[in-house]
Amino acid sequence: MQDMKVLVGFITTPEGEAALEAAIAEAKLRDARLVVVHSLVGGGRDEDQLPEYKKALDAVAARLEADGVDHEIRELVRGNAPGNDLLEFSRDEAVDLIVIGVRRRSPVGKLVLGSNAQDILLGADCPVLAVKPAKS
Amino acid sequence: MQDMKVLVGFITTPEGEAALEAAIAEAKLRDARLVVVHSLVGGGRDEDQLPEYKKALDAVAARLEADGVDHEIRELVRGNAPGNDLLEFSRDEAVDLIVIGVRRRSPVGKLVLGSNAQDILLGADCPVLAVKPAKS
Repeated sequence: MQDMKVLVGFITTPEGEAALEAAIAEAKLRDARLVVVHSLVGGGRDEDQLPEYKKALDAVAARLEADGVDHEIRELVRGNAPGNDLLEFSRDEAVDLIVIGVRRRSPVGKLVLGSNAQDILLGADCPVLAVKPAKS
Repeated sequence: MQDMKVLVGFITTPEGEAALEAAIAEAKLRDARLVVVHSLVGGGRDEDQLPEYKKALDAVAARLEADGVDHEIRELVRGNAPGNDLLEFSRDEAVDLIVIGVRRRSPVGKLVLGSNAQDILLGADCPVLAVKPAKS
């Protein structure tokens, strides 16, 4: 039997961290493999962020290792916006669930969903789980 | 221990049916109670749809009964838009997961998420699972 796959995009924000935590829980619940995707535009346009990302990604790998989660980490440098990169990857790899982080709306502000979140929610062939950071 | 609760709005569209199917699967996976909410504005504004809804809701109840899913069906008539009704209910009842159906984007069209879906995705305290009808 083919393993189920849970996909999460890697991003060092409170939303990204909430998504990673939820994706770990979902992968365990479904006995699925967790695929952590790091999407870079490439062409030198995000090189300044690389050292920071590498460090954070290493920490994620160590954490998943210690936690005994079946996982793989994939770095994509294909000139795509992150939302489209995740979508394309989810189709190519027949992913079963995508987990995304969305911002928590302030009590007053009328927030709209970001374009990456909208693209993924509308374009995904598989279910998408949207989670928020804990209330601060 | 308090039971986990999975919430789904009842609506007789392909998106609503996809959401119900996914919510049943999630409730089973999490050993949770499935709460099916039927939201009506009330005040005579949706009375013409009532017989049709009653029939469909009875069919859902029979199906959940036969399937052995721990569930409850709640009809809300509080003058609210469905999205806000679901949100308010999810907070009052400390729901653990909301399942919603979203439209499948056509290969050409640039679709935006409906306002109920956006309200729920942005306003929910708990995770939201967005699913689509099967490809036709």
